[in-house]
Amino acid sequence: MNKPYVLGIDIGGTNTVFGIVDARGVVIASSSIKTLKHADFNDYIDELHTEVTRLLKANDAEDKILGIGIGAPNANYYTGRIEACVNLPWPMPVPLAQTVSEKFGIPVAITNDANAAAIGEMTYGAARGLRDFIMITLGTGVGSGIVINGQLVYGHDGFAGELGHVIMKRNNGRLCGCGRTGCLEAYCSATGVARTAREFLEIRSDDSLLRQLPLDSITSKDVYDAAVKGDKIANEIFEYTGNILGEAFADFTAFSSPEAFVLFGGLARSGDLLLRPLRESMEKNMMKMFKGKVKVILSELKEADAAVLGASALGWEAGKANTAPSPVAMPTQA
Amino acid sequence: MNKPYVLGIDIGGTNTVFGIVDARGVVIASSSIKTLKHADFNDYIDELHTEVTRLLKANDAEDKILGIGIGAPNANYYTGRIEACVNLPWPMPVPLAQTVSEKFGIPVAITNDANAAAIGEMTYGAARGLRDFIMITLGTGVGSGIVINGQLVYGHDGFAGELGHVIMKRNNGRLCGCGRTGCLEAYCSATGVARTAREFLEIRSDDSLLRQLPLDSITSKDVYDAAVKGDKIANEIFEYTGNILGEAFADFTAFSSPEAFVLFGGLARSGDLLLRPLRESMEKNMMKMFKGKVKVILSELKEADAAVLGASALGWEAGKANTAPSPVAMPTQA
Repeated sequence: MNKPYVLGIDIGGTNTVFGIVDARGVVIASSSIKTLKHADFNDYIDELHTEVTRLLKANDAEDKILGIGIGAPNANYYTGRIEACVNLPWPMPVPLAQTVSEKFGIPVAITNDANAAAIGEMTYGAARGLRDFIMITLGTGVGSGIVINGQLVYGHDGFAGELGHVIMKRNNGRLCGCGRTGCLEAYCSATGVARTAREFLEIRSDDSLLRQLPLDSITSKDVYDAAVKGDKIANEIFEYTGNILGEAFADFTAFSSPEAFVLFGGLARSGDLLLRPLRESMEKNMMKMFKGKVKVILSELKEADAAVLGASALGWEAGKANTAPSPVAMPTQA
Repeated sequence: MNKPYVLGIDIGGTNTVFGIVDARGVVIASSSIKTLKHADFNDYIDELHTEVTRLLKANDAEDKILGIGIGAPNANYYTGRIEACVNLPWPMPVPLAQTVSEKFGIPVAITNDANAAAIGEMTYGAARGLRDFIMITLGTGVGSGIVINGQLVYGHDGFAGELGHVIMKRNNGRLCGCGRTGCLEAYCSATGVARTAREFLEIRSDDSLLRQLPLDSITSKDVYDAAVKGDKIANEIFEYTGNILGEAFADFTAFSSPEAFVLFGGLARSGDLLLRPLRESMEKNMMKMFKGKVKVILSELKEADAAVLGASALGWEAGKANTAPSPVAMPTQA
């Protein structure tokens, strides 16, 4: 193959990270620009093109890129656009795939961050060989990418896989960033864990290492550190979090009966503090026919490379898509 | 095509109904035998073969059957077996697909009733042309068949799509037939509606036509009849049921973002008594990005023919599957 690489681009609210990736998932080289520097989207694309070209030249990779994959918030695989995103400065919708494809002369496919993570895990990571799994990203929010029969689930409108927003508490649930109450994300994200800590500390009176910190500044990392030191309340916060995740996973299993859940993100690195109660709760809450069948495993992608790897995995798909109709944006001059 | 028909077989707890179906979904002829008559599975298959052969001869359809599709409780598409079912008299698992295929010399595929209904609806009914929809059967229980990207979702083990058993009430939920509490099925099946009626009548003191009936004998049909006559409690029972279904549909949408939910079964025939609160609740409980996008429609298959049509639709797939590996059981003499 004379085009042995793909380019992965991860557009975050702060940085846009991009990297050249080979077929085994090695990030050959990577760099980044600031996402918010340009209020004009075309100026942003110009700088991205300049910096990517510089990276390609420095690594003798010009004309060796098969396709470009982009992960971005609310990016729609079908339309190739970012439909709406309050964290990006450009007028919505942003015609991302078409613009990048025209600028670089390379096929482009885009999707949201969690879907990119799922494809990355399937291509290079813990989900290699799995045809049915659900990727769950436990970061600031709870994201998901669902793979069924070897294919990512985009749904009718391209927005499937919003599992952070299934309702876990139908009464008296916490307000979620989406405007509704009781969502999984309001409990089981890093911010959800911090909220649980504040609730526990307010409601209870027993001692805790966490009481040494200002209530409003407590993070999930603080809870982790206290739990590792044997703090009772901190451990119970992980118990509470894992329990809700397990309830959710039991319901998700009734939907698509996956072989595994693959966890990614800061909270997933809590290890057995989270995994033990999660697995126990999942098994306890599952239908009998599913018990003992579903694995909960951790991502095998390096945290620093994961976003670029995830996006890049979609580049292989884009590069192989030669036939219309396809959600892949093809450069018109190609 | 010299084999213009398929055979659909629906194995129920009481009757086994079978019919010859053409490509447009017309049931050319149908008949039935008693499912429970034979404790020996092979005796059952012998009688089924005799009666099907009689039907084929009478309709000049011998050698014109492309494939056989079977819908049966807990039938697994991948293994071709009924894995476990308390309502059938034979030792489990039952090697259904292989046995029927050998006996008839015709390719056979099997799945459970709700999945068969989904395939039937996609092949001949309200879901023609839809690539992403969720079939919900509201009968004695709540069944589901999920179609994503034009394909039925079987999941890793063949048992995906148990949406009647997602948990809608995490606290103080009703006991479900599956042994757990709070399942959708415990509220939104025909029996669930009858249970709601008993609860409402016990807890409340206002008058109702339903109070003229012995509490334990009230059925969902009784509730429907009273509601049509303007009975307040009966109407509120439908409101309560539709509300829970709408909450569930909002969550299902966050999973696979379907174009439509297709409803089938006795309760679905309640019309706007159920559909109005269901649609209102679904829209109210949905994430903003999905609002106004998802249709709730009714099955277009005739109730009497639906089970046979659903099963038969799988027969086309079985008939076209000539390559191994495939979940379709092929007769060895073929």
